[in-house]
Amino acid sequence: MAIITLTTDFGEKDHFVGATKGAIYSELADLKIVDISHSISPFNIPEAAYIIQNAYNSFPKGSIHIIGVDSELNPENKHIAIKLDDHYFICANNGIMSMLCSEITPEKIVEINIHDRIETSFPVLDVFVKVACHIARGGTLDVIGKAIETIKPIKNLVPYVNEDRTQIIGSVIYIDNYGNVVTNIKKHFFENVQKGREFEVSARNYKFKTIHSKYSDIVNFDIPDEKRHDEGRGLVVFNSGGFLEIAVYKSNPTTVGSASTLMGLNLMDTVSVNFTAVQMAPKGRETISSYND
Amino acid sequence: MAIITLTTDFGEKDHFVGATKGAIYSELADLKIVDISHSISPFNIPEAAYIIQNAYNSFPKGSIHIIGVDSELNPENKHIAIKLDDHYFICANNGIMSMLCSEITPEKIVEINIHDRIETSFPVLDVFVKVACHIARGGTLDVIGKAIETIKPIKNLVPYVNEDRTQIIGSVIYIDNYGNVVTNIKKHFFENVQKGREFEVSARNYKFKTIHSKYSDIVNFDIPDEKRHDEGRGLVVFNSGGFLEIAVYKSNPTTVGSASTLMGLNLMDTVSVNFTAVQMAPKGRETISSYND
Amino acid sequence: MAIITLTTDFGEKDHFVGATKGAIYSELADLKIVDISHSISPFNIPEAAYIIQNAYNSFPKGSIHIIGVDSELNPENKHIAIKLDDHYFICANNGIMSMLCSEITPEKIVEINIHDRIETSFPVLDVFVKVACHIARGGTLDVIGKAIETIKPIKNLVPYVNEDRTQIIGSVIYIDNYGNVVTNIKKHFFENVQKGREFEVSARNYKFKTIHSKYSDIVNFDIPDEKRHDEGRGLVVFNSGGFLEIAVYKSNPTTVGSASTLMGLNLMDTVSVNFTAVQMAPKGRETISSYND
Repeated sequence: MAIITLTTDFGEKDHFVGATKGAIYSELADLKIVDISHSISPFNIPEAAYIIQNAYNSFPKGSIHIIGVDSELNPENKHIAIKLDDHYFICANNGIMSMLCSEITPEKIVEINIHDRIETSFPVLDVFVKVACHIARGGTLDVIGKAIETIKPIKNLVPYVNEDRTQIIGSVIYIDNYGNVVTNIKKHFFENVQKGREFEVSARNYKFKTIHSKYSDIVNFDIPDEKRHDEGRGLVVFNSGGFLEIAVYKSNPTTVGSASTLMGLNLMDTVSVNFTAVQMAPKGRETISSYND
Repeated sequence: MAIITLTTDFGEKDHFVGATKGAIYSELADLKIVDISHSISPFNIPEAAYIIQNAYNSFPKGSIHIIGVDSELNPENKHIAIKLDDHYFICANNGIMSMLCSEITPEKIVEINIHDRIETSFPVLDVFVKVACHIARGGTLDVIGKAIETIKPIKNLVPYVNEDRTQIIGSVIYIDNYGNVVTNIKKHFFENVQKGREFEVSARNYKFKTIHSKYSDIVNFDIPDEKRHDEGRGLVVFNSGGFLEIAVYKSNPTTVGSASTLMGLNLMDTVSVNFTAVQMAPKGRETISSYND
Repeated sequence: MAIITLTTDFGEKDHFVGATKGAIYSELADLKIVDISHSISPFNIPEAAYIIQNAYNSFPKGSIHIIGVDSELNPENKHIAIKLDDHYFICANNGIMSMLCSEITPEKIVEINIHDRIETSFPVLDVFVKVACHIARGGTLDVIGKAIETIKPIKNLVPYVNEDRTQIIGSVIYIDNYGNVVTNIKKHFFENVQKGREFEVSARNYKFKTIHSKYSDIVNFDIPDEKRHDEGRGLVVFNSGGFLEIAVYKSNPTTVGSASTLMGLNLMDTVSVNFTAVQMAPKGRETISSYND
């Protein structure tokens, strides 16, 4: 049974999500529709890019992902469909897919040309649903568009490395439900530059010398509970998506505070990593390992 | 396979939505449940009316729509089920369905009388689910209630037209996720009064002489990107539901602002349209068309 | 067809919920996934406990409930699976299930030991999904863990009764979407102490002498609508889950106010019930009945 996922900035209140699902079921009764998120900030391309990249590959091969963010058709914002990693993505050519396409080469990209002469202010309903159902029925991308080679990039998505490779300068691309601050520095990128050296992560005036693999790694369970003061402490992890993330243990943005609120870190802020000149060990994993704060 | 949709003011956090879905699946395993919205403002009838009207007809004929807003049974708030446009609606007789019923004549309205002696503070779970599953199994409305002829109206839902038909006085009935301001002036109503004349839409001290068919119509794509200043500009469209809407291009209520926040327009505020005395052309469509700002 | 429900503090925006659903469908195509709530306050155990207790038993027997709140595995936070009331629950052993287990004796509790050597910051995806799909396929709890006898309690969950049984001291455990204030005093607990006596519910300086069975019970429908002033009035009900709740008629936290905002009642605040010394009638139901304010 085909799966169609939805990632939009429609919000939870308006009728747009319900209407889109109704239109899908009106075309095809026998499929599953799964919400990934409808709370992307309006017109926020990097947020949408981050979320679809982290969600899509939990789904079975062959899944069809509709991304409805900044999708109104105009001369500079064409509609595209992409086959990549055996998944299908339908969105506007506005940069949303550039992060994922820079990591995995798409098998096929087409610019959708089924619009005929439809002028619409609701292209997800009027165009993306038709394309998704066409694919769900087993149709090919060639039927609904003409092949293109490249898509629009997003600026500033890749972190900067200085010439002598002693520094990575990244930036905050997402703040999650716990107020944790996600940067654009991915684990394999970090390790390629690190090459086993010691390092210091800096965000505003906060410094970290260890990157953990899970949040409770900072807790010393050998000392009694009442003598610990870990809740509210900052730490750095590679999160489940592989992104370097500045977190606060058991944070809650509306009560005890979070990495974003406590450290004053917002979208687009700079997070840098400085490496020592000397290489330490043949394998850098030690430094990133857990339990050695 | 039957489809039951849910439109409520239950919110996203409480257990009410989950419990309702569990109760439906406990009665009938083989159907689809689709959320339209659970973020209607508590007890807000006009919002619920606007959302169900815009969502329902994307769904297949035969779909069953539960509307759980202000639905506690009492002597002045009876439960009803309506068949209209080959869709079924289950709700309280509190005005929610009056907007839709004024446009499309219902095939049947019944006042639900299966309550027996149940006193319940959760009628969606205890009554509406039973009625919906009865219909989903192919049952008729006659079995669950007695036919009635009319339902309760909502006040001030239809815009006012002055005697010499030179002015429409409408009001704001909904503010959407992008902060766009939706009025109760529908396209066919507008065109019936306009009859080809020039017009001016007024909201507070903002004036508009064109109504667009999509948001990016205000952008001149012939001039270079860096010389454009369209983001944040106001415009008027007939939205995808056919309602006159005052919008801001690429708005975001929490960052750059929106029509609601930038122009100070709130629910129930007045939006008027003034027409010139002279008729212009045999067909008014020119004035409402796109690309002619 | 199996049903898996999800109750988490993941929020509505992040990719966590979508990724979890994708992982379930990747293991098993033929089941239903139902969201109970993803808006539990981060790491809030009592909220999660209240919501799962009120939602689970609307679902068919055999349903599988994943609860993803404070679920990172560590030496003091093991993962458990529980069979209770013919439902399955998968969560961390952090107190979430203690409210329910104190009312209904579990048939089986196991401490999950399929982790192998997985270190993960996303245990719902990496562990709970696997356990849920194992159960959905008809697998037993013995295969995925070793039986244990007891689980961790939550403190202060049960209200206090004084020695001469003239007073119950409870506390606020949940504030719902309407701003209604839910206490930990359940109806059967209340009636066991009351034994037919008159009573007074006190919250801050507000007093109530009646408990209703539904919200509109406070309205006198015999007097004309325009002479009533019921909206915004406080009242006490046993809510649909059987908990004593302080409510405001037709409340809306963001406009007219709610029990929480108008009476200044917050989570953990005290709500007490004082009983008169003298017993009144053999059956206390009269005092709790409706329409007798």
